Amino acid sequence: MKKLINDPFDFVEESLEGFLLAHADTVKRVGKRAVGRKDGPTPGKVGVMVGGGSGHLPAFVGYVGKGGADAAPVGNIFASPPAKPVLEATLAANGGAGVLYSYGNYAGDVMNFDRAAAQAGGQGIPVETVLVTDDVASAPLEEKDRRRGIAGDFFVFKVAAAKAETMAELAAVKAAAEKANANTRTMGVALSACTVPANGKPTFSLPEGELEVGLGIHGEPGLRRTKVEPVDNLVAEMTDYILKDLDFSGSDVAVLVNGLGATP
Amino acid sequence: MKKLINDPFDFVEESLEGFLLAHADTVKRVGKRAVGRKDGPTPGKVGVMVGGGSGHLPAFVGYVGKGGADAAPVGNIFASPPAKPVLEATLAANGGAGVLYSYGNYAGDVMNFDRAAAQAGGQGIPVETVLVTDDVASAPLEEKDRRRGIAGDFFVFKVAAAKAETMAELAAVKAAAEKANANTRTMGVALSACTVPANGKPTFSLPEGELEVGLGIHGEPGLRRTKVEPVDNLVAEMTDYILKDLDFSGSDVAVLVNGLGATP
Repeated sequence: MKKLINDPFDFVEESLEGFLLAHADTVKRVGKRAVGRKDGPTPGKVGVMVGGGSGHLPAFVGYVGKGGADAAPVGNIFASPPAKPVLEATLAANGGAGVLYSYGNYAGDVMNFDRAAAQAGGQGIPVETVLVTDDVASAPLEEKDRRRGIAGDFFVFKVAAAKAETMAELAAVKAAAEKANANTRTMGVALSACTVPANGKPTFSLPEGELEVGLGIHGEPGLRRTKVEPVDNLVAEMTDYILKDLDFSGSDVAVLVNGLGATP
Repeated sequence: MKKLINDPFDFVEESLEGFLLAHADTVKRVGKRAVGRKDGPTPGKVGVMVGGGSGHLPAFVGYVGKGGADAAPVGNIFASPPAKPVLEATLAANGGAGVLYSYGNYAGDVMNFDRAAAQAGGQGIPVETVLVTDDVASAPLEEKDRRRGIAGDFFVFKVAAAKAETMAELAAVKAAAEKANANTRTMGVALSACTVPANGKPTFSLPEGELEVGLGIHGEPGLRRTKVEPVDNLVAEMTDYILKDLDFSGSDVAVLVNGLGATP
C-alpha cells in the first residue's frame, strides 16, 4: 500500500481537521465527527442532512454549504457514522422546520440514521428520509428499493438542498428528493480495487488487462469482468443498462461523468 | 496499461472535443489544436496565453476563461504544441494590446513559443514571455533559471490573468507574472510512474513500498528515493527544501496542495 497519510487509524480525524481548516469560511465542526454550515442552522428552513462513511472525498462533508447540505456526520472509512454524530448533525441542521436525511442505501447507514431520527423525534424534531438508490447494477428493476446509492447522490442531494433553500416545507423537500432519486440512474466500471488504509491490502484483485462493470463503491461485486476495451464500447454498454431501466425518451437529461476520485 | 480511452493516438483530439463540448458556454476552438475564450479576444486588453503538452488535465485548456487565460495551444501528450497552434492561439488572444506568454520552462515549449512569438511580431503583435520555474528540485538555487515549471504555474497564470483583467499594459502584466514566479516555490513526491497511452508502459518503475522525492511531472528524475514514510515526515522534508530556497519570513503565503491528478 502506498498512500500519503500518517497512521491509518488517524486518517479520518486528520482529514476532517484539514477539511475544516481549509474551509473555515463556510463550515464548522458540530460534534466530534460532524460538520455543519458555519452560519447554521438557518431559522425556518428545512435542514438537509447527508452523510456516510469516509473514503469518498469530497463526499460527504464537501456537500455542506449554502445551496447544499446543512450538516453531515462523518463515519470511519467505508463505515456508517454511529447514531451519536448523526444526532449531533441533526441538531446542527435543525432550524425549526424539520430535517431531511438523504444518503446512499447501505444497511449500516440505514440503521444508524434511523436510530438518530427516532432520538431527534423524541426531542420534537421531525425527520424524513430519502434513500439514494441510483446504482442500476446493484439489484434488478423489480427490486429497485434494494439498490445502492453511488454518484447519483449528487443529483438527489442538490435537488433537496435547492428545494429547501426556497423555504419549502419538509414534505415538499422530501417529495423533490424522491422525484430526483426516481429519475436518476448510474452505472460504473472499475479498473482496480481500492485499499482501505487500516487494512493495507486491496479489497479484491483484478488481473492486468481486465476491468469490472457495475462494481460498487466499496468493492461490492459487479455484473461481469471483461478485457479492457475501447471506452466507447464501455460507455455504450453502461448507457444500455441505464436506458433499459428507465424510459428517458423525450426528456431533458443531465449527465454526470464521475471518476470517484480515481480517473481525472 | 489500464485506461478508459479509445485509440491512444486519438486521445488528445477526443479529450479536446470533450472539453469543448462540456464548456461550450465559455470556450471555443481557435485553431486545430488551440482553445480560446468564447467571447475573445477582448479589445484593448493584454492577452494572456498559457499552454503546453496534453496529459496534465485540466492544464492547460482549463485555465482559459474570464479571470484566466485568453487562449491556450494544445500539444500531444507530454509534448509541446508546434509553433502553428501557438500562433493561432496568439491571434485569438490578441486584443490589440499585445500578448503575454506564460508556461513552464521546458525546452520544446521554449522553442515553439519563441518561434510563434517571432511570427506574431512580424504581424505587429508584441509578445512577452514569462517562464514558470517553481520546481526547487529541478536545479540548484544558483541555476534557478534552469528550473522546470510544475504546480506553480497556477499562481503565475492567475496573477498574470488578474493583472491583465485590470487593463494594465503589457509591461505591467509581465512584471506581475515575473514577481509571482520569483516568489513561488514547489516540491513534489511521486508514489508511482504514469503511463503515456501511446507507449503503453510506465515511464519508469518504483518498487513496492518506495516513493521518490522531487520528481518532475513527465517522470524526470527526482532527488532521492525512500521507503514510504508518514506524510508528516515528507511534508517536513518538502517544506524544508522550499524554505531553504527563499526567505518567506514575515510574509503572507498562499499554500497550494496539489495531487497532479492522482491523489484525491
